[in-house]
Amino acid sequence: MTESATQGLVDTGRFSHLFPTTSKQYAAGIPNSVVDYVIVFRYAKNPPKNTSREAYASQVSQDFESLGSKLASSGLLYQVKQGAEDNTLLILVHCPWSVLKKHLFRSRIHDFLIGVRVEDVDESGRRDSGHAESKTDENELPRHDLTEAERLRLVYDMITLPVNDGGANVSPDTDKFVDSIFALHNDELNKSWIQSWNKKWLIHETDLQLIRDHLGEKVAMYFAFLQNYTLALAVPAVMGVIAHFTLKNTFNIFYGIAMMIWSVVYLELWQRKERNLAVKWGVRNFSRHDKQHPGFTGDTVVRDAVTGEMVPYCAPWRLFMRRVLTLPGVAIAAAGLSVVVGFVFMVEVFLHEYYTGPFHQFLHYAPTIGYVLLIPTMSGFYTKWVKVLNDWENHKTEAGWEYSYTQKIFVANFLVGYLSLFITAYVYIPFGEHLLPYLDVFNIQHNHQKVGTERLKAQLMYFIITGQTVGFFTEMIVPRIKAFILPKVMTYFNKGKSDKKISDSNSTELDAKTLEAKDVMTEAENKFMQKVYDEVAMEEYNIYTDYVEMVIQFGYVSVFSTIWPLTALCCLINNMIEIRGDAIKVCKYTRRPTPRRAESIGPWLGNMQTLAWLSSITSASFAYLYRSTTDIHSPWTPIFTIMAIMANEHVFIVIQAIVRYAIQLVPTWADIVARQQEFKLKKTWLDRTANEEQFVAKDIGSKEEASNNELDMFWMEHQKPESELEAAKATIRSSFKSD
Amino acid sequence: MTESATQGLVDTGRFSHLFPTTSKQYAAGIPNSVVDYVIVFRYAKNPPKNTSREAYASQVSQDFESLGSKLASSGLLYQVKQGAEDNTLLILVHCPWSVLKKHLFRSRIHDFLIGVRVEDVDESGRRDSGHAESKTDENELPRHDLTEAERLRLVYDMITLPVNDGGANVSPDTDKFVDSIFALHNDELNKSWIQSWNKKWLIHETDLQLIRDHLGEKVAMYFAFLQNYTLALAVPAVMGVIAHFTLKNTFNIFYGIAMMIWSVVYLELWQRKERNLAVKWGVRNFSRHDKQHPGFTGDTVVRDAVTGEMVPYCAPWRLFMRRVLTLPGVAIAAAGLSVVVGFVFMVEVFLHEYYTGPFHQFLHYAPTIGYVLLIPTMSGFYTKWVKVLNDWENHKTEAGWEYSYTQKIFVANFLVGYLSLFITAYVYIPFGEHLLPYLDVFNIQHNHQKVGTERLKAQLMYFIITGQTVGFFTEMIVPRIKAFILPKVMTYFNKGKSDKKISDSNSTELDAKTLEAKDVMTEAENKFMQKVYDEVAMEEYNIYTDYVEMVIQFGYVSVFSTIWPLTALCCLINNMIEIRGDAIKVCKYTRRPTPRRAESIGPWLGNMQTLAWLSSITSASFAYLYRSTTDIHSPWTPIFTIMAIMANEHVFIVIQAIVRYAIQLVPTWADIVARQQEFKLKKTWLDRTANEEQFVAKDIGSKEEASNNELDMFWMEHQKPESELEAAKATIRSSFKSD
Repeated sequence: MTESATQGLVDTGRFSHLFPTTSKQYAAGIPNSVVDYVIVFRYAKNPPKNTSREAYASQVSQDFESLGSKLASSGLLYQVKQGAEDNTLLILVHCPWSVLKKHLFRSRIHDFLIGVRVEDVDESGRRDSGHAESKTDENELPRHDLTEAERLRLVYDMITLPVNDGGANVSPDTDKFVDSIFALHNDELNKSWIQSWNKKWLIHETDLQLIRDHLGEKVAMYFAFLQNYTLALAVPAVMGVIAHFTLKNTFNIFYGIAMMIWSVVYLELWQRKERNLAVKWGVRNFSRHDKQHPGFTGDTVVRDAVTGEMVPYCAPWRLFMRRVLTLPGVAIAAAGLSVVVGFVFMVEVFLHEYYTGPFHQFLHYAPTIGYVLLIPTMSGFYTKWVKVLNDWENHKTEAGWEYSYTQKIFVANFLVGYLSLFITAYVYIPFGEHLLPYLDVFNIQHNHQKVGTERLKAQLMYFIITGQTVGFFTEMIVPRIKAFILPKVMTYFNKGKSDKKISDSNSTELDAKTLEAKDVMTEAENKFMQKVYDEVAMEEYNIYTDYVEMVIQFGYVSVFSTIWPLTALCCLINNMIEIRGDAIKVCKYTRRPTPRRAESIGPWLGNMQTLAWLSSITSASFAYLYRSTTDIHSPWTPIFTIMAIMANEHVFIVIQAIVRYAIQLVPTWADIVARQQEFKLKKTWLDRTANEEQFVAKDIGSKEEASNNELDMFWMEHQKPESELEAAKATIRSSFKSD
Repeated sequence: MTESATQGLVDTGRFSHLFPTTSKQYAAGIPNSVVDYVIVFRYAKNPPKNTSREAYASQVSQDFESLGSKLASSGLLYQVKQGAEDNTLLILVHCPWSVLKKHLFRSRIHDFLIGVRVEDVDESGRRDSGHAESKTDENELPRHDLTEAERLRLVYDMITLPVNDGGANVSPDTDKFVDSIFALHNDELNKSWIQSWNKKWLIHETDLQLIRDHLGEKVAMYFAFLQNYTLALAVPAVMGVIAHFTLKNTFNIFYGIAMMIWSVVYLELWQRKERNLAVKWGVRNFSRHDKQHPGFTGDTVVRDAVTGEMVPYCAPWRLFMRRVLTLPGVAIAAAGLSVVVGFVFMVEVFLHEYYTGPFHQFLHYAPTIGYVLLIPTMSGFYTKWVKVLNDWENHKTEAGWEYSYTQKIFVANFLVGYLSLFITAYVYIPFGEHLLPYLDVFNIQHNHQKVGTERLKAQLMYFIITGQTVGFFTEMIVPRIKAFILPKVMTYFNKGKSDKKISDSNSTELDAKTLEAKDVMTEAENKFMQKVYDEVAMEEYNIYTDYVEMVIQFGYVSVFSTIWPLTALCCLINNMIEIRGDAIKVCKYTRRPTPRRAESIGPWLGNMQTLAWLSSITSASFAYLYRSTTDIHSPWTPIFTIMAIMANEHVFIVIQAIVRYAIQLVPTWADIVARQQEFKLKKTWLDRTANEEQFVAKDIGSKEEASNNELDMFWMEHQKPESELEAAKATIRSSFKSD
């Protein structure tokens, strides 16, 4: 995939007379930056029912025409290429600097006014002049480089934003045949990035900065989080190893509370880190201004109170009702998923613990198939279904949509990740022995004596070791195999295609111009188009999957590691590989993500806080239930377990309050920088305007001066401080003299 | 008190030759505005031990001198008057407009930069031009009136702020003999304000605006809160009346949950109201910039990262340790207070319920004396003690100090207000019957049969009816009596004083100048000085007392009203009087509060949220404990009570989450205005700078243009959108033609 961009001297001599000065530069291949975005325009091979072939063709044609004119009227350049697949056109879009700079200017002014940009002072001093110094108000832009990510973010806005906001209003939401819009990978950079990571243990701030500059803050924030979280795992890993070798009862409440404290401290510290990164990356406060969600539709159209434009409006109670009504929808889907997870679990328990009949060695591995095939498939259905629900909820803002969607995704992953553990802990172990008689009734062979906590440990170890290994395979090795096989298929496919194309063009007599354009395509361009085809064929990068994996893992460590204290160590090792795997994935196996800004990990933080709270429940209940002195079958046990849980919830809240209080006593780097920035800005403004004070507040001044005259009489003989002083001193003297 | 300012034609003829043009204006008395602040300079009558009379006198004299020079070097005018009491000097300070305007200018620029000022659009359209329109950056101030409150706030800053921040560094914290600094009442305005309130039921927004303009946002915020809270009480008042007449069991859980919901909804709505007021009063975001607490001391001095000045520094862990170490201090004080409250309660219960011996009719009223005298005295000690602790905690910011102090005050008032109710509910009623045998042992007469919930109801009714009535008396009637008697005492005292003064001056031969200055004092000035003396004698306005009263009352309604549903109605009636009483108090019985800004009610909100949470505990436990079917003496009852409590806590959290979610769906007026403001500002900036784009981002531009040349080859034949369109349409046509 990367060859086209980095390899080989191409013979451009044939066309050098056409482009006498610039043709040599493509000797090293065409860089990704010649094209800002690729718009995939895809239509059905066969028209939908009740539509004639011609009508559909002219509809597609018209839609394309409107698309083209929208792009052209925004000043964007585009060229159209046939896609690798049939019925697909690729629109390569480029934004000339003359057009981009207006948008950049608007964006920078906007950022300044809402307080996003503070001076970019990173430790290396790489950028030493902030906009405070550079007198923003005198119409000079803040001195910041335009990074690749920012450029792409702005161009994406220009393509997708409504016309009123300065965009071309082209997006999969508004245009029926627009399948997707994506930017091309910077292969050279990706290569050097991944190579450098393979040579070192830790990812540095500069590496994160590189990601931020090329893939945007949102992706960079994910890697920062993953890195930070992995480092933080060292603490429970060490604690876990100690606990593993010293504590007899692994369900120790003190170990549980220690994990709870770690979770709380870690989450608080991460929030500080987040704020620091937001300042460093110049995205602090940006989320204050909600971006409108493109799918939002209103019942009516009203005049916007702010901009005066006509905007869709939906009554708040309707929005609330929609949110309420999706709850049962999510609940049903979650229940369905729970049934599947529960079924797989039951089969697993049965085959592992009870079944000793024929093929039992072989059937032992059947449940893993459930985890690898059945459950992911069901999760896939769930994900699609909740996306429909989430769109129906009609969110006004991007942030609202994302929050709501994240919650729904989290529910599914929570069930898949934890449900069988909860069933084991709270149903199977306490009540499992009641099952034994029934097994006898059905005359099933078994050699089972007692249901103990080993089952719980085995379950957790399965998720930590087998689960994560399988996850790594499906995420990394399978795509690698795909990546190895696919190009060959592609090449074969393309050969057939290009043959066909020629025959097509022969038979249909495409107009001469097109043919000519094709003819002058240099070899470099061919290679470049191959890169484009390859990337069109890739899946989109899904940051939710990456986050949810880590958040669920955080749950294993914080909620369940009292079961098996080595959990954190295993996760730490897993993540050292994971971070590199994710880097390769985002560079090689998925399309380049559209750069977006992010000043935090958003809703995932809330999910992790929920898990930390949940850890107060599990640690207390495990500690009580699985004590050697607890009679697990006593009717009072459930009540005392609940009491223990609730008491520990209060402990959790107190710990959280103390940790928060203690941590906020230490000022953050971000706060200091922000204050520095504001201080400088203020000084600049005051200095600049100091001479013109007489002009200032003229109206207030004249009023005040008028009223000052009134006071003259009262103050006229008190203008000299010396005389006041003398009088006062005399009085003081006198008061000590008399008596 | 008000006469001097509003009354009477004074014969100024005698001095008219001295002030030919301006003397007539004082015919209506000298307005309060001739003096911005009165600094009370007070020294001990007798020098401290080990100090000679002369040494002390010269020390006082020197301190005064430094004080005077600090004021003078800041450009403030001052005159010195002898105070009504011995050993007191009154320094009347005035800030000339020429000095003030610099400070005003700085302050406005600062406000603009940190995003405090948004366009002041109030409904009446009284101010229709915001600073967005008035081009702040062109060195013109936002067109806002300078209100009395703002003027006084700025002058107070000029007197008290450190020299680096443009102040004179004069304050009770830095100057040993400075007792207090306060502004004078605007009597005329106060009079009309209170009169207008007596004529109407509801306090309007314009009334609040008036308070804001004259006493500052902090006081106005209190009145806004009181008004808003009183109106909100209508809901539980109606609910309570219905419950009182329909429900047999007053400890109904549904009524309890309804009250919980009301508490949560009310608190959320108030936060919206707060935000709206903050925008309307132009204080939004102001608290983002923490003001340094003047009492803060450091272990070392470090260079401030922001301003580059040398500032005191104290390591965070030391601060944390101090906070931790004050906890036992507060705990001991709280325990002491609890003992007193418990003792009064025990005496009360004994006298009311058991004692039938001699004088029992008379002794019946003894506990009230405990509540009126003993407990307030102990609270007074507590308050002084925690203030010492709070100062020792060494808070860096004003907000931090205030938060910490408020929490401590709240603890005391919580104990005084609720402890006896908790004892009754959770100790006396469940376990009270165990007491009866002991009474027989001590041979005490009693005619007591059973301990029931009537006792709890009686206790609550005592607080709601007797407590609030007594409170009103001590707050309103006692000061009125004082105000009636004090002036007479004062007059008598002053007569003695002025006699003495003359004899003093005769005997000590004050220098001629002072005498002369005294001679030319007009009668208007004498009256004015009488007003000053009166106000020096007043207590300072304590906003904590007012807030804590309301917050504790909120607790009675939300935490305890399942005991007696008419609570809310009684509180509603009380507050209709309270709001007027507080207005009179702040105008007549206390010194004028120094205007401060506030964008919220601050820590009190947190306290009310705590009380709302507490209501989940009481409503559940009362509902379970006092059900007719519950055997209160069963050993399982405590366990099930705790289960009920904890379950209801979860209900509370869910309710809170739902209410918050639902409420945030409706955009607030404040948000819209803020966005409007920012939109306008952005437009203004863009319009102003649109022509100068070529100047913008020159460096980025040249770089981008250079790289643009690179792209020429790829794009050179694709500049015409029409040809692209034709080619694409041909492709679409062909794909529907072939098969």
